[in-house]
Amino acid sequence: MKLVDALIELLGRDAVRQDEADTAGFTQDWRGRYRGAASCVVLPSSTAQVAAVVRLCAQHGTAVLPQGGNTSLCGGAVPDEAQALPVIVSLNRMRKVRSIDAANNSMVVEAGCVLAAVQQAAVEVQRLYPVSLGAEGSCQIGGTIATNAGGTGVLRWGGTRDNVLGLEVVLPDGTVWDGLYALRKNNTGIDLKHLFIGAEGTMGIITAAALKLHPLPTSHAMAWFAPTDPQAAVEVLGLFQARCGSQLSAFEMMDAHQLNLVLAHVPGRRDPLTSPHPWHVLVELSDTGDSAALDQVLQDVLEDASEKGLLGDAVLATTEAQRAALWEVRHSVSEANKKAGMGLTTDCAVPVSAVPAFIAQATQAVRAIVPDMPVAVVAHLGDGNAHFIPFYSFAQWNALPDQEGAAQAVRHAVNDIAHALGGTFSAEHGVGRTQLAEMRSYKPAVELRLMHAIKRAIDPAHLFNPGRLLPPE
Amino acid sequence: MKLVDALIELLGRDAVRQDEADTAGFTQDWRGRYRGAASCVVLPSSTAQVAAVVRLCAQHGTAVLPQGGNTSLCGGAVPDEAQALPVIVSLNRMRKVRSIDAANNSMVVEAGCVLAAVQQAAVEVQRLYPVSLGAEGSCQIGGTIATNAGGTGVLRWGGTRDNVLGLEVVLPDGTVWDGLYALRKNNTGIDLKHLFIGAEGTMGIITAAALKLHPLPTSHAMAWFAPTDPQAAVEVLGLFQARCGSQLSAFEMMDAHQLNLVLAHVPGRRDPLTSPHPWHVLVELSDTGDSAALDQVLQDVLEDASEKGLLGDAVLATTEAQRAALWEVRHSVSEANKKAGMGLTTDCAVPVSAVPAFIAQATQAVRAIVPDMPVAVVAHLGDGNAHFIPFYSFAQWNALPDQEGAAQAVRHAVNDIAHALGGTFSAEHGVGRTQLAEMRSYKPAVELRLMHAIKRAIDPAHLFNPGRLLPPE
Repeated sequence: MKLVDALIELLGRDAVRQDEADTAGFTQDWRGRYRGAASCVVLPSSTAQVAAVVRLCAQHGTAVLPQGGNTSLCGGAVPDEAQALPVIVSLNRMRKVRSIDAANNSMVVEAGCVLAAVQQAAVEVQRLYPVSLGAEGSCQIGGTIATNAGGTGVLRWGGTRDNVLGLEVVLPDGTVWDGLYALRKNNTGIDLKHLFIGAEGTMGIITAAALKLHPLPTSHAMAWFAPTDPQAAVEVLGLFQARCGSQLSAFEMMDAHQLNLVLAHVPGRRDPLTSPHPWHVLVELSDTGDSAALDQVLQDVLEDASEKGLLGDAVLATTEAQRAALWEVRHSVSEANKKAGMGLTTDCAVPVSAVPAFIAQATQAVRAIVPDMPVAVVAHLGDGNAHFIPFYSFAQWNALPDQEGAAQAVRHAVNDIAHALGGTFSAEHGVGRTQLAEMRSYKPAVELRLMHAIKRAIDPAHLFNPGRLLPPE
Repeated sequence: MKLVDALIELLGRDAVRQDEADTAGFTQDWRGRYRGAASCVVLPSSTAQVAAVVRLCAQHGTAVLPQGGNTSLCGGAVPDEAQALPVIVSLNRMRKVRSIDAANNSMVVEAGCVLAAVQQAAVEVQRLYPVSLGAEGSCQIGGTIATNAGGTGVLRWGGTRDNVLGLEVVLPDGTVWDGLYALRKNNTGIDLKHLFIGAEGTMGIITAAALKLHPLPTSHAMAWFAPTDPQAAVEVLGLFQARCGSQLSAFEMMDAHQLNLVLAHVPGRRDPLTSPHPWHVLVELSDTGDSAALDQVLQDVLEDASEKGLLGDAVLATTEAQRAALWEVRHSVSEANKKAGMGLTTDCAVPVSAVPAFIAQATQAVRAIVPDMPVAVVAHLGDGNAHFIPFYSFAQWNALPDQEGAAQAVRHAVNDIAHALGGTFSAEHGVGRTQLAEMRSYKPAVELRLMHAIKRAIDPAHLFNPGRLLPPE
């Protein structure tokens, strides 16, 4: 029997999609940059069905491409131009919250649950699932785990990896690993979940997860201030960590160019400060206690920083509306940059102490390629994660004979600087297929060799998400 | 050339120990329970020397046993009775703090650094390395990483795994993996450090680590209270987490029997409360702010708990001396239990919500084997980690025809209860060789199979710490 027919027999006709009209949403990424063909798209409803699908694919030697909400920024979730067409396994129909244990601060959810729904289910029992990012309304929890998604909560609560207690995974041979341990401590051999977190679907399909929950913050304090330069921002971060590190939930920096792009291109956004400054920081404290105490601490630290000459101006948000307005400025960055020109977004992380050197040296490096190239900087400073964004105007970009080559050269120059400072070319977006060349450039041979050895041990037929994450040996 | 001669040529005679007088401290564990013979003990001074030792051992097909401070509770650090004698590689001479980056909250240390020295080096730059445990004066950081050590800081700061940013490892073929990344975010493929954390030396030798540091707490508030029962203790824990979860640094529970053993066997210890109670909790808040606020929160939550009928009595420590006295009661448990009889310490973790059921059911289970058997309970309640300790009197113990069999049967009955509640038989002590039978009993076949596959991929000749962690296939 042909594989597609066997899949229809297994799942029913409605759960196997072949027509282009039915599959377009799965074979093309949300920005329309990447697309490829698939043998079919299947929509299993249970872990047992996923396992049966994988066994059929293994029998037929057909590649398997697990897909969550299809929000990858690296082309990791859709097929490429490979001749052997994969079966796309969508987790869309596996959206159950299986259990919540508030006293244990844990919940078990199926992989297809949308991140925002997971957050909401936690809020309903007065708990926080702290992973938060732009795509949270459509990305799925399984995809965030497979890509170890970052976002704005990392400074305080860690990234996705730090908030996963256990996993249920269908392995490449179709067996199910039930590792849904909801334990804070478990020292019994290799911690297998880490083989699947961040593996981008190359080691199996995550079908469910036990997640770590946290007390729900009930009070917030927020300010916007202008550090004199990135080094001053690092020092103010240090003052906050020393005084109230356990309440510090955001420390987001941007440069004047980035702020001006937001003000120019997004209606309704206003400069939080009354006069221009070269650098800007949004700082937020969150806690389960009362707000007045948080406001006081925030004010104390900013006064201390001011006395030390580390900042030019600062404003505290005193109402919920002001707080929302400050976050809106930060969240408008992507929208503004899309309108402002061709921004070559990078995703480097370096040690926090090296962020000022990274920004200075990366600016020099891109201007050695394109003189006077404008750059915007928006950084999760507390994580050392700086999105350094060189810009072409649309006119410049359209005049380029080799756009992809030019973009790659500029990005690579930025990544070179991060690498030399002990940093990484991908802090939170992952590898997918767009960063395979950077994997080969920067990863030590011994790391690639170890990753290939693990891959062979778990997926010897090399059927899971081929052409992603790992450059061929 | 014989291996030992080649090692002497490589390291010098002083760094290769063969005489029994020189090797006894390495071939026998600190409690004198386990011992075995080794081909020799080597004391390399650098990563390059470790790599050269490993290459020589690989050439000779000789097993390698990495050793830190030799403080394992599971016989994991000393040779067993295997006929093929291993080379013990001690990290004693690799004790350098290579670098500290306070602004990045990170430090890089060699594996032989004693844990207390690491903590102290952090304090000198006003930072905290939060892993803290009884053996901290002699265990080495490399050993704590290889065993993913737990301790009393897990509730607030996570375990060892959560506090390692990067590793330097000599792999079984003698190549060096330099993975000393000091980054908060790095999404570039499999996170290889997790293959070595908790692997108990079966995958290579950790030679250095990049560690995560935290703001140094400057204020503390502490109380001792008597919850009406374990369920009430879980509920009071929930009140603390909701009100001040980010300040909660200890929540240690013990039963009256455990407290009475401390009072009876350790001179100078006093009951913190004025009348007897069946259950006891030590709770501590820590922060970087001022103490008065912390004391107030502590008092508020305890008053709330009292109004809800969750506790019988409570006392706040108002001086540093009182605080120290409360910790002393907790820290006297091991000393008391050693004198009190033959305590069969177990190391289970279950979901926090299941701790009351675990204690009740485990008590029934052991008394089905030994009627009226006394049990003591001391639990890191916030981690769901309950050391449930059935006792034989010394007279009973000495009269047993098969001591090891009896102890194993009692412990296994306790582990059965934890397993049925979704828990684990080893929360923080690891596997070593004493828990191999439990690995076989409780780990799903698919997990053992995955672990063996990883082991074969990284150590195909099976030379690293054989006979530990993984029961033979």
